[in-house]
Amino acid sequence: MSSEELLMIPGPVPLHPRVLKAMSRPMINHRSPEFAKILDKCVSVLKDAFQTKNDVLVLSGSGTAGMEAAISNVVKGDNVVTIVNGKFGERFKEIVALYGNPIPVEYEWGSPIELNDVEDALEKGVSAITMVHNETSVGMLNPAKEVGALARKYDALFIMDGISSIGGVDVPVDKWGVDIAIIGSQKCLAAPPGLAAIAVSERAWERMKAKSPYYLDLKAYRKYAAKEPAQTPYTPAVPLFFGLHEALRMVKEEGIHERIERHRKCAEAVRKAMDAMDLQLFPRLNDISRYSNTVSAMVMPDGIDDKQLRGGMKKRGVLIAGGQAHLKDKIFRIGHMGNVSAKEILTTLEALESTLSELGVKAEGGVVAAKEAFG
Amino acid sequence: MSSEELLMIPGPVPLHPRVLKAMSRPMINHRSPEFAKILDKCVSVLKDAFQTKNDVLVLSGSGTAGMEAAISNVVKGDNVVTIVNGKFGERFKEIVALYGNPIPVEYEWGSPIELNDVEDALEKGVSAITMVHNETSVGMLNPAKEVGALARKYDALFIMDGISSIGGVDVPVDKWGVDIAIIGSQKCLAAPPGLAAIAVSERAWERMKAKSPYYLDLKAYRKYAAKEPAQTPYTPAVPLFFGLHEALRMVKEEGIHERIERHRKCAEAVRKAMDAMDLQLFPRLNDISRYSNTVSAMVMPDGIDDKQLRGGMKKRGVLIAGGQAHLKDKIFRIGHMGNVSAKEILTTLEALESTLSELGVKAEGGVVAAKEAFG
Repeated sequence: MSSEELLMIPGPVPLHPRVLKAMSRPMINHRSPEFAKILDKCVSVLKDAFQTKNDVLVLSGSGTAGMEAAISNVVKGDNVVTIVNGKFGERFKEIVALYGNPIPVEYEWGSPIELNDVEDALEKGVSAITMVHNETSVGMLNPAKEVGALARKYDALFIMDGISSIGGVDVPVDKWGVDIAIIGSQKCLAAPPGLAAIAVSERAWERMKAKSPYYLDLKAYRKYAAKEPAQTPYTPAVPLFFGLHEALRMVKEEGIHERIERHRKCAEAVRKAMDAMDLQLFPRLNDISRYSNTVSAMVMPDGIDDKQLRGGMKKRGVLIAGGQAHLKDKIFRIGHMGNVSAKEILTTLEALESTLSELGVKAEGGVVAAKEAFG
Repeated sequence: MSSEELLMIPGPVPLHPRVLKAMSRPMINHRSPEFAKILDKCVSVLKDAFQTKNDVLVLSGSGTAGMEAAISNVVKGDNVVTIVNGKFGERFKEIVALYGNPIPVEYEWGSPIELNDVEDALEKGVSAITMVHNETSVGMLNPAKEVGALARKYDALFIMDGISSIGGVDVPVDKWGVDIAIIGSQKCLAAPPGLAAIAVSERAWERMKAKSPYYLDLKAYRKYAAKEPAQTPYTPAVPLFFGLHEALRMVKEEGIHERIERHRKCAEAVRKAMDAMDLQLFPRLNDISRYSNTVSAMVMPDGIDDKQLRGGMKKRGVLIAGGQAHLKDKIFRIGHMGNVSAKEILTTLEALESTLSELGVKAEGGVVAAKEAFG
């Protein structure tokens, strides 16, 4: 039974019973003051998570819908620098190609971004630059602050996928000059999957194109958000808003900075455990601050494959993620975002030690190391 | 409290406790056999509702996302006949204008469609024709079978919004030759809002364009549905699938034809009640079969406005809908779709009689007439 399984994938994450209960509230009219109150409260806490004074809009769609809304509203035949060092960077590039001309700055998945390359690309004359902040596919954090500064220098809009970072990692959107930032509901916020929140700067509003896909038209979302009562242009996924609302109450109760610190601690414990177990983090980075605090990727130990490893974990009641595309069988990933705490990390590490042992891989001391890290 | 209010708007509709409970299930991996099973079962019952052997895909988005997916995958600069006699016909035209050239066949909202006009427009040489089957904004059913035949005659794709008809009205998609049909989850199926189901004919697949919005790319949805295990290209709104799955189990338990008959009976009772109360249906149609069986629109009685009428109803615990755009204050609407039965209809009519009496409008006998209709 899935309900007894521990979901340690990089989203969707396990939902708190309060959030699950919220989703079973009876349906309400989506154009009522009652729904407006929920929408307004969600936006208010989301602004804290984004650390922004910009407009925040919530779309009924996945993070990918949010990425496409970001691109399609400001790009029309324009040159756009697209930074790629993982699967979601690729996705941004594919979306940009639908609406404009990507100027790719590409690396092997998991290789660090060189700011010189970014600057060279910006010099070609572009209207925007896209970057995935937390590259979920490789467990890596890209240099948002630095790229934000370059975007400003070259007067390009900075469009950043913060889907799996914001809410679990410190992301001061306004300070870093992110013009359009995106959160996915099912990641660090521990809300149900199916909603995307987007923060849009004044600078981005000024550069909006006349046309975008109808369903993703940010101008329409802004117009309806300003109505009395506040609403969305098309019927929203009401139960998901109930869930998001409750999840954000929990974010507020915890405090956004405390939440970020909890994510940092969990990630640190995982990395120390991997070190103790002689499992190699993927990629190998000199700068530890570039490792993701919301998902860790590890090189698959020699002689075993994805099916064996994840099958063994599943048998022990823990679901983890494999590598995507060409990284399948090459890496495995542990998601540690949302409501994650020492308990889930230790359970996961116990299952990992036991699975590897069964598969004949000597890898011990992870649980002990993590316990020490948690103190 | 909303949970004690009776929602009689044309979607979202009240959800059965079984459906509410289903949405509070713990989260699962959306790329697991477990999710595939839910997706497959949903598709199987949806095919019964569509009465189709065509592919059925489910998008995490509103009915409008479904409409845009339908258009954007097959229209690229093409001429498209767009039939408009209400708000959602307008929406189809607006979406077509984003991807091609609308050849509008337009009427006053609530005026019947003349097939001669449709044929004249088709003769101009078009690749597709759009029509809203059940025009929710005016409580009217448009001639799908006849327009389907004309579409075939002129070799145009027939794209039909069945958002608020399918599941509550007899819509044999294959028999009528509907190439792309759309259902909204929150209407007749009594599932949560936020999902759109789309049935796509072989003829439509053959005419797909290379590019569409990324999030609405039907080819990607088909590709991922064929994977083992079946999945969606982007993270689906998992709790809504839990809800849809349970709602569709209830549809199957009832039987699709029994469900349609129940909707017919409820609509008939409402119309007989309006007649007894001397309230005029909007629009006035000669052919009774053109009235919607899922939503009824009535002319606002002289001397009272939307706020008074709907405010009085709300005070009595019943939420109904007003007119949209220029029909605000001109009409009011009662949604009777989903799990609706005699009980909800009678409660609504009682509240309506009482509200109108308080507002000084003589309108009695509705409850009695409806009771007779229910037998």
